[in-house]
Amino acid sequence: MKQSQLFTKTQKEAPKDEVSKNAQLLIRAGYVHKEMAGAYDLLPLGFRVVDKIKQIVREEMNAVGATEFLMTSIQNKNTWTDTNRWDDEIVDVWFKSDLHAGGQVGFGWSHEEPITAMMKNHIHSFKDLPVYVYQFQNKLRNELRAKAGLMRGREFIMKDMYSFSIDEETHNVFYNQAMEAYTKSFERLGLGDDTFITFAAGGAFTEFSHEFQTICDAGEDITYINREKNIAINEEVLNEKTLKDLGITEDELEKVTTAEVGNIFNFGTEKCEQMNLYFDGPEGKPIPVHLGSYGIGITRVMGVIAEKMSDENGLVWPEDIAPFRIHLISINADIEAQDIYDKLQESGVEVLWDDRDVRPGQKFADADLIGIPHRVVISPKTIEAGGLEYKKRTDADANIISESDLFQLVK
Amino acid sequence: MKQSQLFTKTQKEAPKDEVSKNAQLLIRAGYVHKEMAGAYDLLPLGFRVVDKIKQIVREEMNAVGATEFLMTSIQNKNTWTDTNRWDDEIVDVWFKSDLHAGGQVGFGWSHEEPITAMMKNHIHSFKDLPVYVYQFQNKLRNELRAKAGLMRGREFIMKDMYSFSIDEETHNVFYNQAMEAYTKSFERLGLGDDTFITFAAGGAFTEFSHEFQTICDAGEDITYINREKNIAINEEVLNEKTLKDLGITEDELEKVTTAEVGNIFNFGTEKCEQMNLYFDGPEGKPIPVHLGSYGIGITRVMGVIAEKMSDENGLVWPEDIAPFRIHLISINADIEAQDIYDKLQESGVEVLWDDRDVRPGQKFADADLIGIPHRVVISPKTIEAGGLEYKKRTDADANIISESDLFQLVK
Repeated sequence: MKQSQLFTKTQKEAPKDEVSKNAQLLIRAGYVHKEMAGAYDLLPLGFRVVDKIKQIVREEMNAVGATEFLMTSIQNKNTWTDTNRWDDEIVDVWFKSDLHAGGQVGFGWSHEEPITAMMKNHIHSFKDLPVYVYQFQNKLRNELRAKAGLMRGREFIMKDMYSFSIDEETHNVFYNQAMEAYTKSFERLGLGDDTFITFAAGGAFTEFSHEFQTICDAGEDITYINREKNIAINEEVLNEKTLKDLGITEDELEKVTTAEVGNIFNFGTEKCEQMNLYFDGPEGKPIPVHLGSYGIGITRVMGVIAEKMSDENGLVWPEDIAPFRIHLISINADIEAQDIYDKLQESGVEVLWDDRDVRPGQKFADADLIGIPHRVVISPKTIEAGGLEYKKRTDADANIISESDLFQLVK
Repeated sequence: MKQSQLFTKTQKEAPKDEVSKNAQLLIRAGYVHKEMAGAYDLLPLGFRVVDKIKQIVREEMNAVGATEFLMTSIQNKNTWTDTNRWDDEIVDVWFKSDLHAGGQVGFGWSHEEPITAMMKNHIHSFKDLPVYVYQFQNKLRNELRAKAGLMRGREFIMKDMYSFSIDEETHNVFYNQAMEAYTKSFERLGLGDDTFITFAAGGAFTEFSHEFQTICDAGEDITYINREKNIAINEEVLNEKTLKDLGITEDELEKVTTAEVGNIFNFGTEKCEQMNLYFDGPEGKPIPVHLGSYGIGITRVMGVIAEKMSDENGLVWPEDIAPFRIHLISINADIEAQDIYDKLQESGVEVLWDDRDVRPGQKFADADLIGIPHRVVISPKTIEAGGLEYKKRTDADANIISESDLFQLVK
């Protein structure tokens, strides 16, 4: 894409009311626009990053045999009364609105109840199980405080997956596969080293749930980790019993601030019993379905990466989720740049070409702020020196490479 | 995909409260689930169809140089007060909700005001224009009546594009390009022959807007068309002046019932003047931006196609938006079917394989209901006859073809 066609402008300053580092950077670089606290539009650059995050997660969910679908935001009051979660005293993040036709609707902060209700149309017999489905859905939550930028939204994109299983054993098999798929996803998203499978509070059915917590100063959670033993415990369940169960002592643990990027929850048969989702077992006896719920905060992941992977000059995207792979900067060499741009596009390399009529200094500053992994400069000076100036976003120094070197690099 | 892994079950009957033909068929065939009147979840089959409709429209929008992005559903009251459209007396489809942090939010029924407000951050000079952006966004509308299935939603997916132009001339050039892109889109979606560019009510700035109206008995509009002269007029602007302007008489026109699948609206400089979006002209003088707004109802298109392209046995998808190209049905020939299934998948052909352990009659009935364009049956009988039984969904009779014939067919 030519940067002259990208309508977003970089900004020296973020809006004064924006206190979070991730949103400040993402706004300044033109990835998002703030509609209000906790609600950010995805501008073309941000849209591309989110699309790549989604695609990585999609591939991993498909790999464990789950099927994509999409539920509505608008939800029925009735769906939530069986589990008592329509009540604002119990769920304090509902957005609700009166329906002109009478009655009320809620806007989906979660889809556990609607998906369970829907499955009553499709699950009747043990032959209909298991079911694994997922969606990328816009959650809406009436958060009292939303000061963490993309990391706590009133509106945010979540990948939510649901498993419906015949019994505990098959449930556990998929639960573990999902856990592995999550681990792979966070590795591919560039967060592998700092993301820990964390024991957290369970529910009526299980002692623990599993959270994926990423070390991040701007996170809202406190996690106790042991890197060697690969154990992590959410502060909320750090007690003698947990330590004993996990065979670890408190002084072996390091206290870190983390952001919850994913979670996995085992409802057992509790929710399906409450909502009357039973199947006919082999002998015709009604048996309640086992439900698992598996979330990844897609836009939160973008926020966490912006928060963690940046320096004083701007964003530093991991290779696989950067909006473009190459930032091509031309300085008085438009014809030569056009040629390289065309060749890169033909090779399927995503390239942003800064073809704007602005000072070189601004081009370099914008490139640092936008944070595309590979920067390539072409100018009469680089041509004279033998080709192109190449620099990784993470490198301090640039060096001259030939055109064929470049194509080797990005192959 | 194997049908045994598709959790949706076909249903003999649609829910009793569902009165629209398109939703009845889409529910019965397992494409959508009804959350409430006007709000339908996209089940895996429906998700695939919508994804294909989106991809066709996306390609055509990209082809005219527009860039994809995504705005939030949650909207600021302030954004809408300048144009007076926050008022429920003026816009009667708002969903609104109180914010726990104080104040109110609205849920986006349109994005003309928020996009115009946002552009104040990015459009300052004539050098910043034009801007062409589009999104696939979930619109939320508090409709009093929602009885037309997917054709009038309380929640629905819309492609909305916006053009910001320097003057009337450049605005008109893009407006016409967009009109052509729309024409191409509807052709590719299989609606070309029955879709008409229709003169409809304009606004403060122009006498007419342009609607894309598709002949459809379940539509809500009355349109007067002349196929030969390729003229169509919405009933709302059918008067002597319009007829004279277009050089046609009333008796040359045929009265048809139509559904509005797209619309194009020229705001001129009106909205940007109201919302204070000006740019510095060549001599530094502030000049208001020209705004155009271009919509396609993505889920409505699915509804219209379901409504128009179906017979007494079920849906009949056009080739390019069917959820799969081939419906492979195996009857006591699982090993042979697996082989063909694998080969088709390897060739990149999307195939749904009915590998279920159910009666052949049910497989045939489900295939007709689901409406995939090409049906291929493999059984000991077809193998003995020389290969596979092949039938188009639109054909009455099947015939035997060889495996290589099949691969020729789908190439």
